[in-house]
Amino acid sequence: MRAVDLIRKKRDGGELTSEELAFLIQSYTSDKIPDYQISAFLMAVFFRGMTDHEMAVMTEEMRRSGVVIDLSSIPGRKVDKHSTGGVGDKTSLVLAPAVAAAGVTVPMISGRGLAHTGGTLDKLESIPGFNVRLSPQRFKEMLAAIGVSLIGQTEDLVPADRKLYALRDVTATVESYTLIAASIMSKKLAEGIDGLVLDVKTGSGAFMRLQEDAERLAQAMVGIGKSCGKRVVALITDMNQPLGEYVGNSLEVIECLEVLKGRGPGDLVALCEELSAYCLFLGEGASSLEGARQLYRKTIASGEALAKFREIIQAHGGDPSVVEDYRKLPKARNQESLPSAASGFIQSMETQKIGIAMCVLGAGRERVDSVIDPAVGMRMHKRIGDPVERGEPLCTLFYNDEGRLREARRLLLESFSFSTTRPKPPALVKKIIQ
Amino acid sequence: MRAVDLIRKKRDGGELTSEELAFLIQSYTSDKIPDYQISAFLMAVFFRGMTDHEMAVMTEEMRRSGVVIDLSSIPGRKVDKHSTGGVGDKTSLVLAPAVAAAGVTVPMISGRGLAHTGGTLDKLESIPGFNVRLSPQRFKEMLAAIGVSLIGQTEDLVPADRKLYALRDVTATVESYTLIAASIMSKKLAEGIDGLVLDVKTGSGAFMRLQEDAERLAQAMVGIGKSCGKRVVALITDMNQPLGEYVGNSLEVIECLEVLKGRGPGDLVALCEELSAYCLFLGEGASSLEGARQLYRKTIASGEALAKFREIIQAHGGDPSVVEDYRKLPKARNQESLPSAASGFIQSMETQKIGIAMCVLGAGRERVDSVIDPAVGMRMHKRIGDPVERGEPLCTLFYNDEGRLREARRLLLESFSFSTTRPKPPALVKKIIQ
Repeated sequence: MRAVDLIRKKRDGGELTSEELAFLIQSYTSDKIPDYQISAFLMAVFFRGMTDHEMAVMTEEMRRSGVVIDLSSIPGRKVDKHSTGGVGDKTSLVLAPAVAAAGVTVPMISGRGLAHTGGTLDKLESIPGFNVRLSPQRFKEMLAAIGVSLIGQTEDLVPADRKLYALRDVTATVESYTLIAASIMSKKLAEGIDGLVLDVKTGSGAFMRLQEDAERLAQAMVGIGKSCGKRVVALITDMNQPLGEYVGNSLEVIECLEVLKGRGPGDLVALCEELSAYCLFLGEGASSLEGARQLYRKTIASGEALAKFREIIQAHGGDPSVVEDYRKLPKARNQESLPSAASGFIQSMETQKIGIAMCVLGAGRERVDSVIDPAVGMRMHKRIGDPVERGEPLCTLFYNDEGRLREARRLLLESFSFSTTRPKPPALVKKIIQ
Repeated sequence: MRAVDLIRKKRDGGELTSEELAFLIQSYTSDKIPDYQISAFLMAVFFRGMTDHEMAVMTEEMRRSGVVIDLSSIPGRKVDKHSTGGVGDKTSLVLAPAVAAAGVTVPMISGRGLAHTGGTLDKLESIPGFNVRLSPQRFKEMLAAIGVSLIGQTEDLVPADRKLYALRDVTATVESYTLIAASIMSKKLAEGIDGLVLDVKTGSGAFMRLQEDAERLAQAMVGIGKSCGKRVVALITDMNQPLGEYVGNSLEVIECLEVLKGRGPGDLVALCEELSAYCLFLGEGASSLEGARQLYRKTIASGEALAKFREIIQAHGGDPSVVEDYRKLPKARNQESLPSAASGFIQSMETQKIGIAMCVLGAGRERVDSVIDPAVGMRMHKRIGDPVERGEPLCTLFYNDEGRLREARRLLLESFSFSTTRPKPPALVKKIIQ
């Protein structure tokens, strides 16, 4: 078998066999096929796509390229949630403790923020002492002990994906829904889960701006999951404005603690409930979706979800007293509000630009090696459809570095559009794909 | 400027600027951009193509990557002919001496046979002593002295093309008319020519099987040539059957000597005249195309073209007595005719397969490093539209190695299709693009 023939086959729209895909992925992972052939192959996939069968085989080959976590010794179903990323997207911090408290094990391997989006690991690390760098062994022990653990990807998990991703990043082949789906699913399937809830974001702050692109990606991931014998559901959700009121690492931890205490903003509360309910339903913690929603609400109301979050913090080496005392979390020295330059209604937001403004302030990573300031961020005072008067604050910025403030303010002011008539706020959950 | 952004721009259908293309080609030639980025770029070009301006700039950057031969010290216009390759395609051996004898300088840098097609250099090397490996300096001296020289590509000519071609060969990006056009034209423009006649083959023995593909390639090459201020004409010509009667290196030399002596098969005679006439017209050896045709015929009839071929052989260190005594050329030990398995008319030929059969026999290269047997080959007795009786010979094979004969016979027998009604023979010159 020759790589060049397989590149040509894909280039001309053919479907690769299981053996051909196994040859490509295995040979590439073991350095037997050079980067320059795989980058040409990836570009051909960008243009030609892959069939459901090809995607499933490619994902499975990528998953098998490294260590696969075996959770069969832990009783019951194991369910994870994965989001494609957005601004203020913090549901994992509520969902993981709530679902675990309700009896379904949550083995969650999360990522860090990149580009304009935040990352679960960065948020958790704003809690003093919280350690996300645990071995797969310690991860399993924690899952057995408290039913939940949140860690970062380890070196030996899905090396094929790491190698492919690095190549895609420098060859303009990142933006392929086929390749994104295989990348996400290979990592999730290596976690040893039985079920997966996908939160596929769409809108001005998502990687998939158009809903049809988000749906294609969701369809691809659900298809791969099913081919691999997993229960997978995807929710297409809105990312035309930040989720919740706060953006920034310690600020988002506080907001999640508020939700776990039965408070918090409506959109965040609703999405946490919906995603958690799907997790509980897939994990057989409830026999119906409506039953799962009730179970989630009961777990919040009883304080069990909050108690589980304390357990998580303790088990990960963090200071659990932050749950009661927010002053123990990093806090920015200064704050300043951003007054509206116009009167009318909030028409739309360039949410990606809001995310970039937060990176400029220090809340996110502009590059992989950027250092994050866990204290900084913003609070949104307005949402799409809200009325606003000229001079009224659109948001409040929490910052430490005066020098970064100016650029962040400029970006934020560019991010809001106004109208004289009230626009309809975007629906939070747009579609369910299963 | 970052390569990844330029790959993305091309991937998304954008037009690269002159500066961007110069950056890509120059950086790649000087090893500042890795193969894996250029292979992704080439695959994006395969799918997106290039505008006329992009192709002209890319060609010019490739041409400038190495030595460019300066022929300005030689008076008059310099014209070359290039064929995209076929089976039995031998017009250069007639055209080069005829056009030079008629007063227009012919600086011809030719190639070797590859895949199913023959190459001018291999044919010339079947003449005992003929040396095609001359330096650009010796090339120029010969052009000044006798008005014509036929050499192979030297290492320092268009290194960007050599590097790109090697990468295309292993990444399934050879079959892009954009990249083929830039590759051919960069080499031709490095020769220091004023005019170029392109013989773009189409049909079952050509790289461009469909006429529309051949026309697209021709259009691209003519466009590039004009952008670079050269006179370029492309003839779309038939390659649905071998050109002339003979295939094989010394056999084709003999057939060309016959044409130079005013004999030879009709299709070869006609195409040599037409291509030579365009060369003479572009080179201002005649003021009209019809005048150029008359001039060519006069040069053949007077024996001046044949005398020029003697001069060429002598100047290249070959034995000029082959012109009169064909026995001095390599001759196969055995011959065998291939009887027809059917009666009727020759409907069509799989000319590529005929070319591959010749490779099997030893007349061509199956791989770049294959060794050629200059003596072997075949004579075709039938052309498309000819009647044939079962048992009547379709062709005669000239061979040295019994072991190779069987496979060649098998391929040849598969190459002919028959019909009960007489098909119309294909037109030799299908279109002129200028």
